[in-house]
Amino acid sequence: MEHYSSQITRLIEELSRLPGIGAKSAQRLAFHIINMPVEQVERLSLAITDAKKNVRYCETCFTLTDDAVCPICKDLRRDHKIIMVVENSRDLAAYEKTGKYEGVYHVLHGAISPMLGIGPNDIKLKELMQRLQGDVKEVIVATNSSLEGETTAMYISKLIKPTKIKVSRIASGVPVGGDLEYIDEVTLLRALEGRVEL
Amino acid sequence: MEHYSSQITRLIEELSRLPGIGAKSAQRLAFHIINMPVEQVERLSLAITDAKKNVRYCETCFTLTDDAVCPICKDLRRDHKIIMVVENSRDLAAYEKTGKYEGVYHVLHGAISPMLGIGPNDIKLKELMQRLQGDVKEVIVATNSSLEGETTAMYISKLIKPTKIKVSRIASGVPVGGDLEYIDEVTLLRALEGRVEL
Repeated sequence: MEHYSSQITRLIEELSRLPGIGAKSAQRLAFHIINMPVEQVERLSLAITDAKKNVRYCETCFTLTDDAVCPICKDLRRDHKIIMVVENSRDLAAYEKTGKYEGVYHVLHGAISPMLGIGPNDIKLKELMQRLQGDVKEVIVATNSSLEGETTAMYISKLIKPTKIKVSRIASGVPVGGDLEYIDEVTLLRALEGRVEL
Repeated sequence: MEHYSSQITRLIEELSRLPGIGAKSAQRLAFHIINMPVEQVERLSLAITDAKKNVRYCETCFTLTDDAVCPICKDLRRDHKIIMVVENSRDLAAYEKTGKYEGVYHVLHGAISPMLGIGPNDIKLKELMQRLQGDVKEVIVATNSSLEGETTAMYISKLIKPTKIKVSRIASGVPVGGDLEYIDEVTLLRALEGRVEL
């Protein structure tokens, strides 16, 4: 690239820093951007800086939001006595998409991982415990079904048990529509252990 | 996404317009961008607008470049009597990477495609013919080995034949390191037709 345009080289370099974008995709994207209408280029560039500048954590649940308090935490129709704990805002978005969850959230921004040196104080756990001082009936732990997610879930359940607030964990098992043949053994065993009477 | 941040929604929308970036990757990228250091975000955003603003076509070969004439066309050590015709600047970059080609280029910015309604006047063919008024010994047609690329190659060769300038086509055949078993029949036949004596 350096053969003909330092501007393109620079754009390719910046694009390659993004996750999941290798040298080839960065090149393809750069050439595409150069051929886009100038208004679209300006919109993309501005969306990037605006999002970085204006998005912040909700004071209550710590999800990423445009305001001091996010629309979910502000919504009086939701059940503020039920808090679902998730690892990040993407997981919150996934549950919101179901349209069926009526409680509120708490975003940890990570999970406990001794491997990566992430301890309980590195995620928004203290903030969760503070929220439990209020009128809370149930905490639903919806961290990932990974080692880190499970460790975090165990840790939270131990923290909350003494408070008499109900703690639950989302079920793990075979995904709907999943073909048993292609599902890993750990999931199959979880599905067996978690079986419910019909 | 619209549940909690219009800024993130906007960024995700703009990112999804890019080729090869679906809804999921756009979401992942947007969250990554929000967590990037502010200087890196500014650099990315600026690289995008700068590239769009400053990159233009080389007056001679029409590749994308920062200057009126690209460094290759300006380079007196290269053989300006040999012109390689490519479909786009990415293909030029691919040949430049080999470090072995010493001629110059001509970038068509497309290929003839009756299917897509792209005719000879929609690509930089007239401009190529103008260059041939000068001192040119050979035109190497390195358009893709697709239907459009082959059509364009045939068209160019017919245009140039009367001028007595030599026209050649890059060889097609089995890629180096390619396992015959996995190569399509058309390529295998091409490789057979193009066989050279040892």
